[in-house]
Amino acid sequence: MTQPCKPFLSHPFDDDKLKEECGVFGVIGVADAANFVALGLHALQHRGQEAGGIITHDGEKGFNSAHRFGYVRDNFTKASVMETLPGALGIGHVRYSTAGSKAAAIRDVQPFFGEFSMGGAAIAHNGNLTNAEALRRELIDHGAIFQSSSDSECIIHLMARSIQKTHADRIADALRRVEGAFSVVAMTRTKLIGVRDPLGVRPLVLGRIGDNGFVLSSETCALDIIGAEFVREIAPGEMVVIQDGKIESTRPFQPAPSRFCIFEHVYFSRPDSFIDGRSVYETRLQIGVELAREAPVDADLVCPVPDSGTPAAIGFSQASGIPFALGIVRNQYMGRTFIEPTEHIRNMGVRLKLNVNKTLIKGKRVILVDDSVVRGTTSRKIKEMILDAGAAEVHFRIASPPTAWPCFYGVDTPDREKLLAARMSEDEMRDWIGVDSLKFISLDGLYRATGAQDGRNAACPQYCDACFSGEYPIAPADQLEKGFKVKAPCAG
Amino acid sequence: MTQPCKPFLSHPFDDDKLKEECGVFGVIGVADAANFVALGLHALQHRGQEAGGIITHDGEKGFNSAHRFGYVRDNFTKASVMETLPGALGIGHVRYSTAGSKAAAIRDVQPFFGEFSMGGAAIAHNGNLTNAEALRRELIDHGAIFQSSSDSECIIHLMARSIQKTHADRIADALRRVEGAFSVVAMTRTKLIGVRDPLGVRPLVLGRIGDNGFVLSSETCALDIIGAEFVREIAPGEMVVIQDGKIESTRPFQPAPSRFCIFEHVYFSRPDSFIDGRSVYETRLQIGVELAREAPVDADLVCPVPDSGTPAAIGFSQASGIPFALGIVRNQYMGRTFIEPTEHIRNMGVRLKLNVNKTLIKGKRVILVDDSVVRGTTSRKIKEMILDAGAAEVHFRIASPPTAWPCFYGVDTPDREKLLAARMSEDEMRDWIGVDSLKFISLDGLYRATGAQDGRNAACPQYCDACFSGEYPIAPADQLEKGFKVKAPCAG
Amino acid sequence: MTQPCKPFLSHPFDDDKLKEECGVFGVIGVADAANFVALGLHALQHRGQEAGGIITHDGEKGFNSAHRFGYVRDNFTKASVMETLPGALGIGHVRYSTAGSKAAAIRDVQPFFGEFSMGGAAIAHNGNLTNAEALRRELIDHGAIFQSSSDSECIIHLMARSIQKTHADRIADALRRVEGAFSVVAMTRTKLIGVRDPLGVRPLVLGRIGDNGFVLSSETCALDIIGAEFVREIAPGEMVVIQDGKIESTRPFQPAPSRFCIFEHVYFSRPDSFIDGRSVYETRLQIGVELAREAPVDADLVCPVPDSGTPAAIGFSQASGIPFALGIVRNQYMGRTFIEPTEHIRNMGVRLKLNVNKTLIKGKRVILVDDSVVRGTTSRKIKEMILDAGAAEVHFRIASPPTAWPCFYGVDTPDREKLLAARMSEDEMRDWIGVDSLKFISLDGLYRATGAQDGRNAACPQYCDACFSGEYPIAPADQLEKGFKVKAPCAG
Amino acid sequence: MTQPCKPFLSHPFDDDKLKEECGVFGVIGVADAANFVALGLHALQHRGQEAGGIITHDGEKGFNSAHRFGYVRDNFTKASVMETLPGALGIGHVRYSTAGSKAAAIRDVQPFFGEFSMGGAAIAHNGNLTNAEALRRELIDHGAIFQSSSDSECIIHLMARSIQKTHADRIADALRRVEGAFSVVAMTRTKLIGVRDPLGVRPLVLGRIGDNGFVLSSETCALDIIGAEFVREIAPGEMVVIQDGKIESTRPFQPAPSRFCIFEHVYFSRPDSFIDGRSVYETRLQIGVELAREAPVDADLVCPVPDSGTPAAIGFSQASGIPFALGIVRNQYMGRTFIEPTEHIRNMGVRLKLNVNKTLIKGKRVILVDDSVVRGTTSRKIKEMILDAGAAEVHFRIASPPTAWPCFYGVDTPDREKLLAARMSEDEMRDWIGVDSLKFISLDGLYRATGAQDGRNAACPQYCDACFSGEYPIAPADQLEKGFKVKAPCAG
Repeated sequence: MTQPCKPFLSHPFDDDKLKEECGVFGVIGVADAANFVALGLHALQHRGQEAGGIITHDGEKGFNSAHRFGYVRDNFTKASVMETLPGALGIGHVRYSTAGSKAAAIRDVQPFFGEFSMGGAAIAHNGNLTNAEALRRELIDHGAIFQSSSDSECIIHLMARSIQKTHADRIADALRRVEGAFSVVAMTRTKLIGVRDPLGVRPLVLGRIGDNGFVLSSETCALDIIGAEFVREIAPGEMVVIQDGKIESTRPFQPAPSRFCIFEHVYFSRPDSFIDGRSVYETRLQIGVELAREAPVDADLVCPVPDSGTPAAIGFSQASGIPFALGIVRNQYMGRTFIEPTEHIRNMGVRLKLNVNKTLIKGKRVILVDDSVVRGTTSRKIKEMILDAGAAEVHFRIASPPTAWPCFYGVDTPDREKLLAARMSEDEMRDWIGVDSLKFISLDGLYRATGAQDGRNAACPQYCDACFSGEYPIAPADQLEKGFKVKAPCAG
Repeated sequence: MTQPCKPFLSHPFDDDKLKEECGVFGVIGVADAANFVALGLHALQHRGQEAGGIITHDGEKGFNSAHRFGYVRDNFTKASVMETLPGALGIGHVRYSTAGSKAAAIRDVQPFFGEFSMGGAAIAHNGNLTNAEALRRELIDHGAIFQSSSDSECIIHLMARSIQKTHADRIADALRRVEGAFSVVAMTRTKLIGVRDPLGVRPLVLGRIGDNGFVLSSETCALDIIGAEFVREIAPGEMVVIQDGKIESTRPFQPAPSRFCIFEHVYFSRPDSFIDGRSVYETRLQIGVELAREAPVDADLVCPVPDSGTPAAIGFSQASGIPFALGIVRNQYMGRTFIEPTEHIRNMGVRLKLNVNKTLIKGKRVILVDDSVVRGTTSRKIKEMILDAGAAEVHFRIASPPTAWPCFYGVDTPDREKLLAARMSEDEMRDWIGVDSLKFISLDGLYRATGAQDGRNAACPQYCDACFSGEYPIAPADQLEKGFKVKAPCAG
Repeated sequence: MTQPCKPFLSHPFDDDKLKEECGVFGVIGVADAANFVALGLHALQHRGQEAGGIITHDGEKGFNSAHRFGYVRDNFTKASVMETLPGALGIGHVRYSTAGSKAAAIRDVQPFFGEFSMGGAAIAHNGNLTNAEALRRELIDHGAIFQSSSDSECIIHLMARSIQKTHADRIADALRRVEGAFSVVAMTRTKLIGVRDPLGVRPLVLGRIGDNGFVLSSETCALDIIGAEFVREIAPGEMVVIQDGKIESTRPFQPAPSRFCIFEHVYFSRPDSFIDGRSVYETRLQIGVELAREAPVDADLVCPVPDSGTPAAIGFSQASGIPFALGIVRNQYMGRTFIEPTEHIRNMGVRLKLNVNKTLIKGKRVILVDDSVVRGTTSRKIKEMILDAGAAEVHFRIASPPTAWPCFYGVDTPDREKLLAARMSEDEMRDWIGVDSLKFISLDGLYRATGAQDGRNAACPQYCDACFSGEYPIAPADQLEKGFKVKAPCAG
Repeated sequence: MTQPCKPFLSHPFDDDKLKEECGVFGVIGVADAANFVALGLHALQHRGQEAGGIITHDGEKGFNSAHRFGYVRDNFTKASVMETLPGALGIGHVRYSTAGSKAAAIRDVQPFFGEFSMGGAAIAHNGNLTNAEALRRELIDHGAIFQSSSDSECIIHLMARSIQKTHADRIADALRRVEGAFSVVAMTRTKLIGVRDPLGVRPLVLGRIGDNGFVLSSETCALDIIGAEFVREIAPGEMVVIQDGKIESTRPFQPAPSRFCIFEHVYFSRPDSFIDGRSVYETRLQIGVELAREAPVDADLVCPVPDSGTPAAIGFSQASGIPFALGIVRNQYMGRTFIEPTEHIRNMGVRLKLNVNKTLIKGKRVILVDDSVVRGTTSRKIKEMILDAGAAEVHFRIASPPTAWPCFYGVDTPDREKLLAARMSEDEMRDWIGVDSLKFISLDGLYRATGAQDGRNAACPQYCDACFSGEYPIAPADQLEKGFKVKAPCAG
C-alpha cells in the first residue's frame, strides 16, 4: 500500500500513533463463504477502519464483489449486500482510514480483481511494496492502465504480463518482481492462495474449519470468531495453494532470515491474538515487567493510557508492587469533532475522549504507561489533564523504544522530522513533554519481552525493528530515489 | 418515563442488563449554549443511546429545537444542526435505546415543549412517574391531547392546567401532583430550572462556568467535559431557578429522608463521576475489596467481565493478592448483527463482542467479576467461552446483590419472573449457570463500599435498593393497580 | 393551515405562483387501506409536495401512522413503511412545500391524531381557518398544549374539550367553532368521516370501491388511480359518517349559498379531474376560447407557458385559428439550484427549467398564454427569452383576471403589496413586463368558461373569487385584527 | 457502450421504448468549467438518467473527478462536490438507466481516465463499438486489466498501447482500431478533443462561449443552457483539438458517406435542439403532417401519447383539421413502484403515470399519436384506458416506421424476437393491440419530414435507419460472430 493503513483504534489519539496496515482474510470450502469473510474482517477491523471489500466466486456464474467505505459491521451485515456474494470461496480486505486527507476513492479499496486469459483472479495485500513507484512507471510505459493509487495494483498488472499458464505461477512471477513487505491472500475460480514475503514482515496464519474448509487470516483472533482451528503460520517466503481440501506449499523466493515486524507485538495485533505460539497480551504484560525493572520509580499509582497501554501497565504494577488504577477513563462514544463552544476549553479533543478520575489522582504520584511516543503532542495533553486533576508527580513509561525512523513496510509513520525521537534525546523529550520522568523500554528489553531471552541479536536481528533502529532489512528503493538516507546499508 | 432508559453500554450483553434511564443537562449564561449542551449530552451518552434533543432560546425571537435518533456525536456535531440552535440558554436530554422493540417515535424524544399564556417552557425529565397512567386518563378526560407515549408529558399538561402565574410555580404545582422519581431540568425564555424529587432518587448536580454561567447535569463527568466547576448537588426535594447569574432555591415538597438509587454506584454512573464527594470508581473498587473479604476463593487469575466489571475486579485482586488479568478481550467495533454462516457457530452474539485470551486462561483457576446478574443468560455463555479456552475452574463474583425485584423509578428491568434471582437461590443459580462457585456481595457489604461504614440501616435505609430488597420507598401506584405485589408496604 | 399549501408544480416558476393547499384522502372497507391511501395521495401530489402522512387503524390493536417529508412515491412505496400501516380504514394528507422558508417540522405534517376518552381519532384538513389565531390563544389560556404551528390543530383541541359523546358530534362541535374554509377527512377506530365547510370553498368528493368500500378525496383524479367509481360531491355544509358500508349524512351548520374556489378551475385542480360534472381541462380550454374572443391579436403562433398554460393555449388557438406550437420546452429534470458558472448567465433559474425553440420562434409574432400573473417577475424573464430567440412581437394572454388580493382560505399568496395587479393597471403591467400587449380574461369571461352562461352574479357570486374581486365571503378575522382592509364588507 | 443507454424519459412507458445512449459534453477556456459541464449534462439528462461523471483539470496539480449515480441536478449541484472539481477545462458524461437489470457499478460510469507516459487523459464516449468484445479478448491476451464492463474502456487500452507521442495521435490510433458508432469528447491537461466516427452516426456540435472558450456537446440544447453560441457540427470523421482558443481540425479516418441516426429526429434528441440547421420540433411536427397525408382517418380528436408524441400530434391535427386535445394526462410525480392494493387494479403501472380525461373522450373517435411501437405492450394498455373511458373508436398513428431490427450503434433495443414489428404485419399488429386502425409513417415519409424532399435514397440512404430497414451501415462484428443475421450485406 502506497498509502498505508491506520493503527489499532483503541488509542484515543489516533493522529499521534503509527498507522497500521490492513488486514486480509480468505476462506474456502464452506457454505456462504462471504459470511465467514465478513466475520473475519470484523475481527480484523482494528487493522483498517476506513473501508473493506469482499470478493467471492459462486462456483458457476462467476465472481461477485462488494467494496464499501465504513465498518464491516455496518456494510457486511446487510442481507441486501450479502446476498450478492454467493459461493464457497471468498477473500476480503480491510484498510486504514485517511482522516482528513484527500478523499479516498472506492477504486482504492481491495481486493483487486483482474480478468486474465485463463480466468479471473482477485488479490488482497497487507504490506507495502518499496519499489512500487518505479514499477508503476515501467508498467505505464508498456501500456498498463492503472485504476487506483494503490501500490498493490502493480501485482495485478505484473500478473497480466506474465507468460505463466496458471494463476499461481503468475502470482509468484509478479511477487518475484516486487520488493517490500507483503502478505497476500488471493483467489481464482477454484483456489485460495496465500503468500508471505521472504522476510515474513507481515503476519499470515492458516486455520481449518469444518470438514473440508481452510482459512487464511492476518491474525488468530479472526479464527476464533468463526470457530476455526489454528493450524500454523504461513512461513516467510511460503506460498500455499488450497483447493478441494488440499494444501500445496511451495517456496517461490530466495530463502532469507525471518524479520517479523516487532511492532505487531507492541501495538498492532489484537491482545487476544497469538504470534509464534505466544499471546500478544502476555508479551505486552512482559514489556511492563521489563520496564519496571529497567526504569523503576517510586510512586502511588500505575495508570494506563487507555486502552492500548493497559497490559503493560498491569505488568508494571505487578513487577513494581505499585497499585494499578484506571486514573484515565475513556468515553466509549468517541466520534466526530464537536463544535467547540469557547476558546477557554483547551484540549477539547482530549476531553471528548478521555476524562481523569480527579478524586483518585489528586495528590498522587502517578506513573502513566503508554505504548509509544510518535509526535509527542498527545503525551503533553495527557500530562496536562493529570496535573489539572492535582497529581503530585507524573512519570511516563513507554512500552516501546523511541520511534525515530519511518516504516516503509506497510505502516503509516509521519515524516522523519516529525518524529519526536528523531529530533530529541530522552531527556529533551522529558522536558518538552513536561513530566517528572520519561523512560522508554530498551530495544533489548523489548526483545526479551517477546521471548528472545538474550535480547536482540545485533548481527542478525530476529525482528524488523527499523522504526527504532534505523536498520532497514529491505532497501526502500522508491524512498532512496527521493533522497531518503538510511542509517546503515540495507541487507536486502 | 413509561419506557425507561437503557443502561450503560459498556457491557457487551446489553439485553441481559438493567436499563438506565436518561440523562439531562442544561446551561445558562454562556455564548452558544447549544454547543455546551451537546458536549454535556455526549458525556452523558451512557445514560441513553437511542435519541437526544436540545432546545435553546435565542433571547429574542424564540425557542429552537432539534430532536434526533442516534448518538449525540453523530447529530449534534453538524454545523447545519447547531446553527439552528442559537442562544445563551439551553437544555437537553438523552434517552435509552429500544433495540428490537416497536419503532420509537421522534415525538417521544425530549425535551418537551409547551406554549403557555405567559410564554413557552421546555422540560427534560430523568426518572419515572409511578402514577402516570392514572394522570393521563384524568387529563384526557379533561381535554388534554397527548402527543407522545411518554409519562413525562403529563408534567407539561399539568403545568398548562395550573393557575399559577409563573412557570416555576406551575412546575412546582405539576410536580406536586406526580409521584415517582424525577430529576427535571427545565427552561423558560430567561430561566434555567432544576428540580429533584423529595427522595432524590435520581442524581442532579450544579456547576458553574465562566463569569456568569451555571450548569445542571445528571453527573459530574459532564461538568468536566466543558470545563465547568462542580458547585454542589441539588438536594432531594429542592428546586433551583437560575437567572441573570443568580440562583434562587426553594423546597416545594414535603420533606422526606433521602433515598438515592444505589445502582447508580454499581453500574449506571460513569466511573469518573463522583457522587456525594465519593468517586464512583473508588466505590466500585471497594465493592471488589468487600467481595474478596466476603467470598474469598483460591484461584490463579481475577478477570473482569469487560468493561463494567473492571474496577471491582481490580479491587478484588488487590484485596486477595490474586493477579488481575484481561482474560476476556472486547471487540471495540461491536454493532449490528452479522448473518451467521453456519449453525455450528454457537454463541455468535458473544463472539462478535468478546474473545478469550486462550493462552492466558488455559489450565488456570479463574475468578470472573461481573457487576450484576439479571436473566443470567450471558453469564452462562461467558462461562462456556472460558471453559472452551481450557480454564480449570470458573468462579463468578458479582458486584451487586441478587437482583430480584423490578425498578419502577426510571430503570428498565425485565418482568419479575424473568429475573433469575426472583426464581432461584444462590446455589440454584450457581448450578444453572454451571460454575464452580457463584457469590454476590451482601447488601450490607454494598452499603459499606459506598461509605456507609455500618452497612444498611434497616429501619431507614440510606438508599433506594428496591431491586435487591423489594422495599419500595414510593408506592408504584400504576403497577399496584395492575396487580403487582410489593414485598412490604411502601413508605411513601 | 396557517401556512397554506403550494400549488400545482407543473409551472416552472413556483415562486411566482399562488400556492395551493393540501390534498386529503380517506378510504374504508378495503383490505390494505394504506396502499389505497398512498395511491390516492400520489394522484393528489400536485396539491402539496412537501410532506405527507397516513394513519390507519388495524381493527384490533390500534392506530398506526407514518409522516414523512418528500414525495408520496418516495416514502409510501417502501414495504418497510407500508407494513407498519395495516388495516381496512385509513386517511392521508399531502401538504405544500416551504421552499426556502424556515425549516418545517414533522410535527406540522397531518393527519393529526388525538386520544379521547371514547377512543382516538385522526383528522386531515384542507383549507384554512380564519380565526385560528384567536382560537389558539383561547385554547392555551384553558390549558391546551399545542404541538404544531398548524391552524388545523385547533380542531383536535376543540374536539377534546367538547362534551359530546361521539367523535362525529365532537367534530361537528369543533367545526362550528371555527371559521374559514375546510374540507376535513377524519377517522375513528371504525368510521370514516368527511365534512365540508358551509360555503364549500374547498373540494371533497365521494367514491365507491369494491363491494363495501368508500372513498373520500379532494379530487376525482384520485378515484381514477385506484379504480374507484365517482358517486357524488360532498355538499357544502355536509358531514358524512361512513361505517360498515353505510353512509349517514347530516348538516351540522347553518345553510349558506355555495362559494367554491374558482381558482381550482384555473390552476389548482388536475386537468383530468372533474368538478360539478365538468372537466377541468375543458373549462381551461374554454378560458382560452373566451380569451381569444375578448382579447384577439394578429399573430403567427400561440405558445403555452408550460405546462399549466397549455389547455387555454389550445383553446385560444382553436378559437383564433392561429397555430398552436410548443415554442417553449420544459426540462423535465428540474430540481435543485445549480452553481452559476458566471455572472454573464442571466436568468439561469429560467434556463434550468425552460428553453426556447429558437428556429421556431425567430421572426414570429408570438402569443404566450399563461394561467396567471402574481408578482410578474417570471413573466419578464420569459419575455426576455422569447425576444432573445428573435421573436418579432410578444403578446401575453392570461387565463385568469388580475390577482390583486390575497387568499385566506388555504392558498398561499404573497402579501398584497407584492401582487403586481394590486399596484398597477393592466397597461402599467404591460409596460413593466415589456411586451407588445398584455390581456387578462375578464371575471365574467372566466365565469362563463366555467359554465355560468350569464357570467358572474354580482349580487351573489357563484364562486369565491376574492383573489380577483377583493370580495371575501368569510370575514378573515385574524387578518382583520392585524389591520388588513377588505374591499367590501364580508357576508359571513 | 456494451450496455447502451436509456431513451428520452418523457415517455411514461420506458420499458417499452428504445433506449438511448449517453450524452457527452466538454468545455475549455472558462473559469469553473465544472459548473458549465454540470449545466450541460443537466440539459442532456434525457440521453442518460442512471449516472453521470465529470473530470476537470485544474491547470496545475492535476485531474479531479466525480462519478455518481443519479441525476445531475442531485449530484452536481452540491458545493461539496463541485469544489472538488476546479479548473478551466472539463468533460462530462451521462448514461442510461439499467432499470431492473444487474446492479450497475460505479466503475462503469464515464468519463474514463488513463495515466500515460506523456500524462493523463480522459474520454467520454457516446455510441457503441461493434467489435468491442473481440478487442477486449485481444487486449487481455496482451496484459490489459479491464476495470469496467464498458466497451468504451477499449479506447483507453488501445491508447495505452499506441506508440504515438501525443494524446491526440493516440486517440486517433485507437479509434482507427475500433468499429462502430462513436462521438468522443476527450481531454488532456491542456486540450479539449472531439471526434466523430466516419459515418457520423451520433451527434456532436461545437459552440463558443465567452472570449476564448469552446464547448463540445451532443446537442445544441446544452449550448443554450449555458448561453453558448452554436458554431457548427463536428463533421463525420472529423477530429478537433482545441487549445488556447484555437481549433485544429483533422480527418484521421477513411472518408465515408454520412449516415446520421434518423431516430435522433424521431425520439432521442430534445425538441428544442436543432440538427443540420433544422429544429427537431419542426421535424416531428412534419412527421405528423406526413402521417395525416399518408394515413388519414375520420375522427373527433387527435390526442398525443404524452409527452413524446405531442409535436407529431399537433402536426397531424393541423394537417387534418381534427382538433388537438390532451385526452391523456401525465402524472408529473412518477417514480417508484407502489404496492398494489388489490389484484382488481389492472394496469396499475399505467395508472400511476397516466390518466384519461373521461369527460373529454367519452363517445369520441380518437386518434392517438405515439412516436414508436417497440414491444407493443403499452400500446395495448393505453388502448384499454381509452376504451374504458368510453371512446367510440381508437386509431393509432405512429411517428416512425415499424421498428423491426435491433440497433448496435448505441441504442438499447430488445432482442429481435421481442420487437412486435419483427413478428407481425401492420394488420396483425392492429389486431393484437386491438384498435380500429394502426398506421405507421412510411420510411420515405419520415425522410421527407426531415427535409429530404425526395425521400430515402435507396442506393445510398442519407441516414442510418437500420432499426427500420435492417440495412446496417457498419457490420456488427461481435453480433455476427454470435450468429446474428443481417438482412443485407453491410457496407462497412
